[in-house]
Amino acid sequence: MKKIVLLGASGSIGSQTIDVIVSHPEEFDLVAFSVGHNINKVHEILEKFPMIQHIGVADEKDAIELKKQYASIEFYFGDKGLCQLANLDGYDTFISAIVGFRGLEPLLEAIKKVKYIALANKESLVAGGPLIKKALNDYNVMLLPIDSEHSAILQCLQGNNISEIDRLIVTASGGSFRDKTRAELTNVTKEQALKHPNWKMGGRITIDSATMANKGFEVIEAHYLFDIPFDKIEVVIHSESVVHSLVQYRDHSVIAQMGSADMKIPIQYALSYPRRLKMYGDKPFNFMDYPELHFQIPDFERFPLLALAYEVGKKGGNLGAIMNGADEEAVSLFLEDKIKFLEIEDYVIQAVRQCRFIENPSLEELIASDLDSREFVRQMYEARETVK
Amino acid sequence: MKKIVLLGASGSIGSQTIDVIVSHPEEFDLVAFSVGHNINKVHEILEKFPMIQHIGVADEKDAIELKKQYASIEFYFGDKGLCQLANLDGYDTFISAIVGFRGLEPLLEAIKKVKYIALANKESLVAGGPLIKKALNDYNVMLLPIDSEHSAILQCLQGNNISEIDRLIVTASGGSFRDKTRAELTNVTKEQALKHPNWKMGGRITIDSATMANKGFEVIEAHYLFDIPFDKIEVVIHSESVVHSLVQYRDHSVIAQMGSADMKIPIQYALSYPRRLKMYGDKPFNFMDYPELHFQIPDFERFPLLALAYEVGKKGGNLGAIMNGADEEAVSLFLEDKIKFLEIEDYVIQAVRQCRFIENPSLEELIASDLDSREFVRQMYEARETVK
Repeated sequence: MKKIVLLGASGSIGSQTIDVIVSHPEEFDLVAFSVGHNINKVHEILEKFPMIQHIGVADEKDAIELKKQYASIEFYFGDKGLCQLANLDGYDTFISAIVGFRGLEPLLEAIKKVKYIALANKESLVAGGPLIKKALNDYNVMLLPIDSEHSAILQCLQGNNISEIDRLIVTASGGSFRDKTRAELTNVTKEQALKHPNWKMGGRITIDSATMANKGFEVIEAHYLFDIPFDKIEVVIHSESVVHSLVQYRDHSVIAQMGSADMKIPIQYALSYPRRLKMYGDKPFNFMDYPELHFQIPDFERFPLLALAYEVGKKGGNLGAIMNGADEEAVSLFLEDKIKFLEIEDYVIQAVRQCRFIENPSLEELIASDLDSREFVRQMYEARETVK
Repeated sequence: MKKIVLLGASGSIGSQTIDVIVSHPEEFDLVAFSVGHNINKVHEILEKFPMIQHIGVADEKDAIELKKQYASIEFYFGDKGLCQLANLDGYDTFISAIVGFRGLEPLLEAIKKVKYIALANKESLVAGGPLIKKALNDYNVMLLPIDSEHSAILQCLQGNNISEIDRLIVTASGGSFRDKTRAELTNVTKEQALKHPNWKMGGRITIDSATMANKGFEVIEAHYLFDIPFDKIEVVIHSESVVHSLVQYRDHSVIAQMGSADMKIPIQYALSYPRRLKMYGDKPFNFMDYPELHFQIPDFERFPLLALAYEVGKKGGNLGAIMNGADEEAVSLFLEDKIKFLEIEDYVIQAVRQCRFIENPSLEELIASDLDSREFVRQMYEARETVK
């Protein structure tokens, strides 16, 4: 029986994680969770898990309000609350399904406490890969990916030896605008960008799919998860999103993982690894629903943030935190209708070009790099507005 | 270091097996082998492995002739010679790369002697599956497939539990005539049938690919290799022959093995399992050489021998030996230009329909069923010729 703390229970991954936990009561129990501002979700989850004693929310006033209704439950709030949840005793599995750099600190706290980490929060690996790897090693904790591509790679690696890998092939849908040229991207709208062809996901990751910054971050994530150098990690565009990723071995054999675009599969696998439990609720994937599969090499000039991520990943240091922080901020500006789609790339590239490089950053330096990077993007935006 | 006895060293699989053994002298050594009538091959192999002391050939006179040249080597001949080679002491790995039912007896002998069997001779499993399974169990021997589809399944199963399988999906190229209707098959020639679109293989297996009898036999082989019921084994036509087979698990995840149409990969994997050794000599598979992959459900009315194999597999008993014996004989008649392509199916179906069913056949009864079935086909052919 795995005792689970889940951060980000109200998001897309979080909700599906709750479904997976509920579907296997003999295997999993939820002991604590956090949401942001969606307080209805707290009531909902408590109906399913009435024994829960620890809950985090974003705002202090929500925590105070909830405490009035559930006197026996401990409520936490803000980023500090996430770290407090991660620091609880008596649980063995930490699931981070929150979005953004703010996942890094609670993750580093959790590593000191648990046996298993199931990670959907790729930003923490992008920004703090070396710190996380060291902590996992120091505390002998297993890190299991929830991202569908990395779950695919883990599945393709099962029973194999990492030293026998020739290369990883990470598939990409290409996002909402994969068939558009750069010229056609000039005036695309937020609404168009948010229509992902294959996956239903949160706002930021959908935009990051369209720029392929997300795929770039996944390349960095794969590097840290599987200890594979960047020149052995390839990206291919696969429009059907059926093959989730592949591993090529030194004997020239390629293993691929396939399935429907359903995050419950990687979520459940991260929790049941190395076993596979029965999947309840959904229609089984029917391979023959996809009689044709297509693959193509992505054009790095068409997707400059994918190219940038390779560069950032190879240089390391604080550049992951810089790139991610700038991207978080620029995507926010885009989602607030303040900048155009192509400007996202511009802001992120400028932020990386102009930052102060730190080769072996501490957590504090990463937090500062993240803040500096966001500040850089906001100032760049304000300067442009002033000119207008 | 694996010490290997190889039956069928001069055929397509046998020659590639020699290449694999030669490429890893630190891992593999050849201690004995057999060829048929290709005596040049004996000299060739002896140049590579001058320490070999035991060699089998088809004809006694070849054995006598060779003994004059290589006085220190023991030569064996005929089917009995194959069993004598299988019965040698001091080796641990038996590779059967001979074609046809005659592989069954030496295989059963070898199981008493070795730790590992690498099997390309699918006919022995088709005809004698239960006998082989019992012997493997009694002597605690591991059976590893060389067929590319079954190697793919084994690779997709690596690190997974057979109890977690939902179904096996065996891919088929569809053979030389996959795009022809039955009406168009009436007057196809031997030369056309021997042109396989993707694989270079021996004559019989190329014809069996065109009728899909081969795929039917592979379904039976998969049933015995992986202990999976027939209603959980599916066949899909995949014209590129890049995805060699797939396993769908109960969590709805599908694992596929891919690679070029190069038998050295499954041969080497069968010898190195569960490790993967570096593949020498060939260009690595480039996934992007196949930007489109196609899959379709085979039409059982178009391929009646595929349908028959499922029926034969489910009923079991001596029907595998009957179907295989009839097919071996009918394909021989076709390759001798004595019968037409579509008659192969007719002969095999009649042989299965009219045989005497034995539920739990002994080896002797299987040998008799094989002989009876061949005799039935020859008599059917002679009767038709008489009518003409």
